[in-house]
Amino acid sequence: MNRTKIAALYADKDQLDGASVTVAGWVRSIRDMKNFGFVTLNDGSCFRGLQVVLNREALGDEAYDQAVSQSVGAALVIDGTLALTPDRPQPIELQAAHVSVEGPSAPDYPMQKKRQSREFLRTQQHLRSRTNLFRAVFRVRSVAAYAIHKFFQERGFVYVNTPIITASDAEGAGEMFRVTTLDLANVPRLEDGSVDWSKDFFGKPTNLTVSGQLQAENFAMSFGDVYTFGPTFRAEDSNTRRHAAEFWMIEPEMAFCDLEQDMDVAEEMLKYAITYVMDHCPDEMDFFNKWVDKGLKERLTHVATSDFARVSYDDAIKILEEAQDGGTKFEYPVSWGLDLQTEHERYLTEHHFNKPTFVTDYPKEIKAFYMRLNDDGRTVAAADCLVPGIGEIIGGSQREERLDILESRIHELGMDPEQYRYYCDLRRYGGCRHAGFGLGFERFVMYVTGIDNIRDVLPHPRTVGNADF
Amino acid sequence: MNRTKIAALYADKDQLDGASVTVAGWVRSIRDMKNFGFVTLNDGSCFRGLQVVLNREALGDEAYDQAVSQSVGAALVIDGTLALTPDRPQPIELQAAHVSVEGPSAPDYPMQKKRQSREFLRTQQHLRSRTNLFRAVFRVRSVAAYAIHKFFQERGFVYVNTPIITASDAEGAGEMFRVTTLDLANVPRLEDGSVDWSKDFFGKPTNLTVSGQLQAENFAMSFGDVYTFGPTFRAEDSNTRRHAAEFWMIEPEMAFCDLEQDMDVAEEMLKYAITYVMDHCPDEMDFFNKWVDKGLKERLTHVATSDFARVSYDDAIKILEEAQDGGTKFEYPVSWGLDLQTEHERYLTEHHFNKPTFVTDYPKEIKAFYMRLNDDGRTVAAADCLVPGIGEIIGGSQREERLDILESRIHELGMDPEQYRYYCDLRRYGGCRHAGFGLGFERFVMYVTGIDNIRDVLPHPRTVGNADF
Repeated sequence: MNRTKIAALYADKDQLDGASVTVAGWVRSIRDMKNFGFVTLNDGSCFRGLQVVLNREALGDEAYDQAVSQSVGAALVIDGTLALTPDRPQPIELQAAHVSVEGPSAPDYPMQKKRQSREFLRTQQHLRSRTNLFRAVFRVRSVAAYAIHKFFQERGFVYVNTPIITASDAEGAGEMFRVTTLDLANVPRLEDGSVDWSKDFFGKPTNLTVSGQLQAENFAMSFGDVYTFGPTFRAEDSNTRRHAAEFWMIEPEMAFCDLEQDMDVAEEMLKYAITYVMDHCPDEMDFFNKWVDKGLKERLTHVATSDFARVSYDDAIKILEEAQDGGTKFEYPVSWGLDLQTEHERYLTEHHFNKPTFVTDYPKEIKAFYMRLNDDGRTVAAADCLVPGIGEIIGGSQREERLDILESRIHELGMDPEQYRYYCDLRRYGGCRHAGFGLGFERFVMYVTGIDNIRDVLPHPRTVGNADF
Repeated sequence: MNRTKIAALYADKDQLDGASVTVAGWVRSIRDMKNFGFVTLNDGSCFRGLQVVLNREALGDEAYDQAVSQSVGAALVIDGTLALTPDRPQPIELQAAHVSVEGPSAPDYPMQKKRQSREFLRTQQHLRSRTNLFRAVFRVRSVAAYAIHKFFQERGFVYVNTPIITASDAEGAGEMFRVTTLDLANVPRLEDGSVDWSKDFFGKPTNLTVSGQLQAENFAMSFGDVYTFGPTFRAEDSNTRRHAAEFWMIEPEMAFCDLEQDMDVAEEMLKYAITYVMDHCPDEMDFFNKWVDKGLKERLTHVATSDFARVSYDDAIKILEEAQDGGTKFEYPVSWGLDLQTEHERYLTEHHFNKPTFVTDYPKEIKAFYMRLNDDGRTVAAADCLVPGIGEIIGGSQREERLDILESRIHELGMDPEQYRYYCDLRRYGGCRHAGFGLGFERFVMYVTGIDNIRDVLPHPRTVGNADF
């Protein structure tokens, strides 16, 4: 079968006017007008479907009746003639010469044309990408992922696949999943009754990674600029619209880079990826703008073309305190030292600055051990990027490159120095100023699509109690 | 600091002749000739280092002495003047005007210039990417990953992140790692003494995925062409040069595609990625060709420009039986029904065909349940691609799209039909011929670099007993 994809029919329509082509796809809708029938066929190559005209006279009664009796969802292979239709809503149509049923669809097909709730569609994860909404979401997800690779690769960054299984507990960033080959019904034990980890696959306890950053630093100290893009995990019992147990992160790490340059790269990357998605998914973005979030395209265009705000934590707290004094109610009252909550983040980015906002130089107590201590001794060189509608989308920092300060932080926090020996080695042998950040990929996809639940931007989301499909 | 990367100095050398530039990188070697010193500086932006000339007179005694006293591995920031040096081995050099020590290196730095064994370097995974060998390997890995994304994206494939944590046991493809939040020292139990999985994070037993294929099919049935590129896992106690517990796989899945077209895409993808790596990593490929595998570049060029062999399993067995009759010794004797071992695969691809070879239509007994049954009733539409030096690098097949045959295979093999309900739904609602394959990414990197141990192409390899860094 030498078929032409529907995307190519639209792209090359002027050359293909009057040409005989074969298309293959799935029925999105079908209408029988007795002597004429109309099928909307989608093959997934583009957001739009193809209007196929069935003519009883041309096909013959038997073939016509078989074709129009197909259900929504059926897979068809259709030979026909392409025609430009400048006077109709759709620019082209296919006049069918032969229709072959590749695979019929059962009448109980759950993806009927009628609008279905996203909650229902989450129970149909194997079929939901056949709806307009999820076809748009998952193509944007794919194009966004590529945009991010392209951004870094074109700038000479080296892509590093940091390990998923890890014996380290990283930064204590969150609850971890254990990875084991021990039989849980019969756990081997030492004489004192504790688990005999020497019998486990790796000879010690291992977990799923919460971040590839520390290992990415290993490679930044040889390649200069590197990035990771892979799955990360949190075993947190939080059933929110923004949290999943398994999600993808992008973590660039750059040598000879300070916090200002780190923010420059983060801002440039976000703008690049937004612009790339808008350029490469115009139909999908129109769909989101019409059906999901009416201000979406305008907002994204604004973000892609204007400077992000940058404000210190100190000043951010002042802004929030003023708002509080002015009557704004926060669930978590504002004072210096507070770990900003989503309500504060959204106030800053949505109400005060009304654009993406970097908050910098947080109190060291609320940030990770590896962040570079500022000269004031009380804050660290961190920068989180907050965006309207989401809150924090990026968390970054300059890393502590001074061995003595890093070691005393590790000591202060009661961490195991042996576990961070290799990390300290990077400072022992040619350490340098360096910085990086982490972008939660799903949050980015939510941001550019306007979708407000992380379950709807993951192909098969994993959350507390849910690991289906 | 407004520094120029060394890659840019080489790329733009003609425009930069005589220009003042700042470079930042790490000392690869340093020589003190009393009044002149020479530093080879590498910043990771390209394989080559930059020759920096230190002039006692120009720098002054103190600065000169401080600079030449630095150890290998130290991080330096150097301002200087770029000069073309057409009469020297290297095309450019930097005449240093100012040297700033960003981070010294301790004298016990393990990555000295002398050649070190790969076994030793495996104990120094956080530092080994500073050697020529591993800088070449991990840049090629990065460029190869991008080439694969580029290949699929430019052809309209949608990238799908299939889940890492899964409640399915996939195809029984191999031993799986358990993922749990239960406390192994105190496993909750039901009254009958068995594990109470309802207390686990997902409310049931979950594992790390061994393949994203089945879930990728969900998306192929809406987008037509999709691919995955993510980590997969095997908890197999096999300590070989070709197996790791954690590795990355690329799994395209294509609707309206048969086995021949599947092989066409696999062959085209391999050729594209090989050519892309050779074009974009010329220095790295020269290094491998010189130090790792002298015939490498010639062999890859041959592969990229000639047709792959295609042979049926039946004919492959005849070839092997003839070899056996002619005196070739195989550890596993050859007869029809045999699951080809690496020795057989390598005989076919290295001795008989002397190029990449697809073996097709294997006995159904040695292949997975989802592969399409051929009309002969005894073989399935599978195609494995074997390459010289590696053996199997790709395993693919046309998938069984006929619901009745698929269900009877599931029944025959004693699998749980409920677990495959969603997979069968794809055949119930508009099923179509479709096919796909899996490429082991590390095997591909081994193939293009000539590196013979999978531990040396993974940033931080995970194998039995090893989960360090």
